[in-house]
Amino acid sequence: SSATDTIRATLFPGDGIGPEIAESVKQVFRTAEVPIEWEEHYVGDQVDPRTQSFLTWESLESVRRNRVGLKGPMATPIGKGHRSLNLTLRKELNLYANVRPCYSLPGYKTRYDDVNLITIRENTEGEYSGLEHQVVRGVVESLKIITRQASLRVAEYAFHYAKTHGRERVSAIHKANIMQKTDGLFLKCCREVAEKYPEITYEEVVIDNCCMMLVKNPALFDVLVMPNLYGDIISDLCAGLIGGLGLTPSCNIGEGGIALAEAVHGSAPDIAGKNMANPTALLLSSVSMLRHLNLHDKADRIQEAILSTIAEGKYRTADLGGTSTTTDFTKAICDHL
Amino acid sequence: SSATDTIRATLFPGDGIGPEIAESVKQVFRTAEVPIEWEEHYVGDQVDPRTQSFLTWESLESVRRNRVGLKGPMATPIGKGHRSLNLTLRKELNLYANVRPCYSLPGYKTRYDDVNLITIRENTEGEYSGLEHQVVRGVVESLKIITRQASLRVAEYAFHYAKTHGRERVSAIHKANIMQKTDGLFLKCCREVAEKYPEITYEEVVIDNCCMMLVKNPALFDVLVMPNLYGDIISDLCAGLIGGLGLTPSCNIGEGGIALAEAVHGSAPDIAGKNMANPTALLLSSVSMLRHLNLHDKADRIQEAILSTIAEGKYRTADLGGTSTTTDFTKAICDHL
Ligand SMILES: CC(C)[C@H](C(=O)O)[C@@H](O)C(=O)O
Ligand SMILES: CC(C)[C@H](C(=O)O)[C@@H](O)C(=O)O
Repeated sequence: SSATDTIRATLFPGDGIGPEIAESVKQVFRTAEVPIEWEEHYVGDQVDPRTQSFLTWESLESVRRNRVGLKGPMATPIGKGHRSLNLTLRKELNLYANVRPCYSLPGYKTRYDDVNLITIRENTEGEYSGLEHQVVRGVVESLKIITRQASLRVAEYAFHYAKTHGRERVSAIHKANIMQKTDGLFLKCCREVAEKYPEITYEEVVIDNCCMMLVKNPALFDVLVMPNLYGDIISDLCAGLIGGLGLTPSCNIGEGGIALAEAVHGSAPDIAGKNMANPTALLLSSVSMLRHLNLHDKADRIQEAILSTIAEGKYRTADLGGTSTTTDFTKAICDHL
Repeated sequence: SSATDTIRATLFPGDGIGPEIAESVKQVFRTAEVPIEWEEHYVGDQVDPRTQSFLTWESLESVRRNRVGLKGPMATPIGKGHRSLNLTLRKELNLYANVRPCYSLPGYKTRYDDVNLITIRENTEGEYSGLEHQVVRGVVESLKIITRQASLRVAEYAFHYAKTHGRERVSAIHKANIMQKTDGLFLKCCREVAEKYPEITYEEVVIDNCCMMLVKNPALFDVLVMPNLYGDIISDLCAGLIGGLGLTPSCNIGEGGIALAEAVHGSAPDIAGKNMANPTALLLSSVSMLRHLNLHDKADRIQEAILSTIAEGKYRTADLGGTSTTTDFTKAICDHL
C-alpha cells in the first residue's frame, strides 16, 4: 500500500494497564498522521470453543484478514478448560518468529550503555510442545520437539532480517553439546541458511557461554537466533540489560507475512486505571509494526520522538524514576512530533 | 577426622592449563599446612571399557574411596565410542548437586559490586537425560526427565546449605507455566522441603524473569536452586556478573557425602605450559572442598589470602588485566598466608 492509503490493523488493548497504553499509541499515531485504522478487539469473558481460549474467533479472524496487529498485555484467566492467550495466538496464527530489538536508550542509565542487538526466537515448538506425561509415579518427562521446517523458517527469517537491516553477524544459540540431536538439527538448519548469505558472518554460541558473554560484553552480539526456550530466557536477559520489559519492543512474525507486535511486559493490575503506566514498550512495538509495513518515515519520526522524550528526562513515568502520568508522557512525545 | 589427621583426597589436574593451576593449589596447601595428601590421577590415553570414557576406573575408585576430590579442566577428546569426561564423573559418582558460590571480588571491578549468591544445580537429570531420537525425518525430540527423588534430594541440599551457611532465602527457578508437569514436580518437591525449614524464606521465580532480575539487581538473590539446564545457564550468567568462570569455584556433591570440587572453566590449550593461567577458580574450589571437610580455619585463611592478593592488584594474571605469571601470583598468595 502507498503511505496515503488507509491500512486496517487489529488492536488488542489487553487487560490491566493495556487500555491506557493502547490509548497512548492511538494518540501518537493520530498526531503523526499514521494512515492506520484500528480494529479493536478485547479478550472475551468466556471460552470461545473455536479457539479453546478466552480469545474470540472474530479477533483471530481480524488479524488473519488484516495481516498486521498490535497487542497489549493479556493475563490468562486462571482455571481449567482453556489455553493460555499468548500461546493460542502463537499457535493459531502460526507466529513462528519472535523478534526483539534491544538497544541502550540514550539518556536512560543502566549498567550497560553499549547494547544494540536483536533476538530472534523460534516461537512454535521446542520445549513449548505441551507434550508432557508421568511415566511412573515420581517420574515425569516433557518432550522438546525440533523440526527441520520450523528451524529453517526461523533461520531464514534471521538471516533475511540481518541482511535487510544492515546487520553483520548472526549467532545461533544452542546446547548441542548436550542435546546433539535436537539442538544439532537446529544448528544444521542454521548452517544451511548461512551458506546462502555469505555476506553475513555466522557463528554458534553455547547458551551458557552466551549468557556469560552477554552480561560481560553485550557489544559482542548483533543478531541472535535460537530455539524457543533459549529465546525466552535470552530475550528477557537482554531486556534486563537496558532497563526491563517496559522498554523493549517485540514483534511476532507469522506465515504469510502476518505481523503481531506486542508489549511483552505484564498487565500490572496494581497500577491499572491510575494513569501511571509506561507505554514505551507498546509504542516501540507499534514502531516495529510500522517498519513491517514499510512505513519507515512514520516509524523513524515516532521512534525519535519516544527516545528524545526519554532522553530529555523531564517526562518519565514512575517505573523510570519519574513522576509523569501516562498522558503527560504521551503528550510530551506528541509535542516532539 | 580431626584437623591434624592426614586426609587423602583425589586430585585430577586435568589437561591444558590444568597441571599448572593444580600445582598452584598444591603449593598453597603446603604453605598453609593443610593436612591433605593428594592421590593424583590423570585422564587416560585410551577408553577404559569399565567407564566407557578416557577416565580410568582407578581414578573413579579413588574418589569413591576418599570421598573427596579436586578436579581441573578436562577437555573430552573428540570421537565416537566414549562419553564426555564431565558427564561420566557426574553419572558414575552420582554427583547430584552442583554448588557455585558467586560473589563480587573486592578490588576487582566489574559492572556489579553487589553479587553474593549461591547457585545450586540439579546435576543428574532434566535435559541432560541423553534420551533423544528422530521421530520421522526432520522431526527430532529430546526427553527432559524430572524425578521426585532427584528433585527432593537437591532441594534438601539447598535448604540445608542455606540453613548451615547463614543464608535467608531459597529461590526455586523454573518454567512451570510452560512445563507444568516436569518443572511442576520440581517445584512441588521444593515446596515440600521448604515446609521443613520455616526459618528460610522460600520463593519461586520463572527462569526468564530470574535472568532479567539477575542482570538488573543481583542483590535480590541469595540461594537459587534449579533443574539441570537452568543451573547450567544461570551459573554461567552469574559468573559473568563478577568477571567470568576463571574466578568462580564449583563443588559437586554426591550420594554418601562425596564432594568433587572443580574449576569449571576450559582447559585453555592456547596458553597451556606458558605459566600464564589464572589458578583462582581452582584455588577457590579447593577452599569449597576444605569447607566440605569442615576445615574452616584453613579454608578461611586461604580464601582470605587469595582475595587479598587479587584486591591489592599488584599480582594479577593476564586474564585480569595484569602481567603476573601463575607462579608469581601463587607466591603472592603464599606470602599472605
Ligand atoms: C507468559 C509466558 C508463557 C511467555 C513465554 O514463556 O513465552 C512469556 O515469557 C514471553 O516471553 O512471551
Ligand atoms: C561442558 C558441558 C557439558 C557442561 C554442562 O553443560 O554441564 C558445562 O557447561 C558445565 O557447566 O559444567
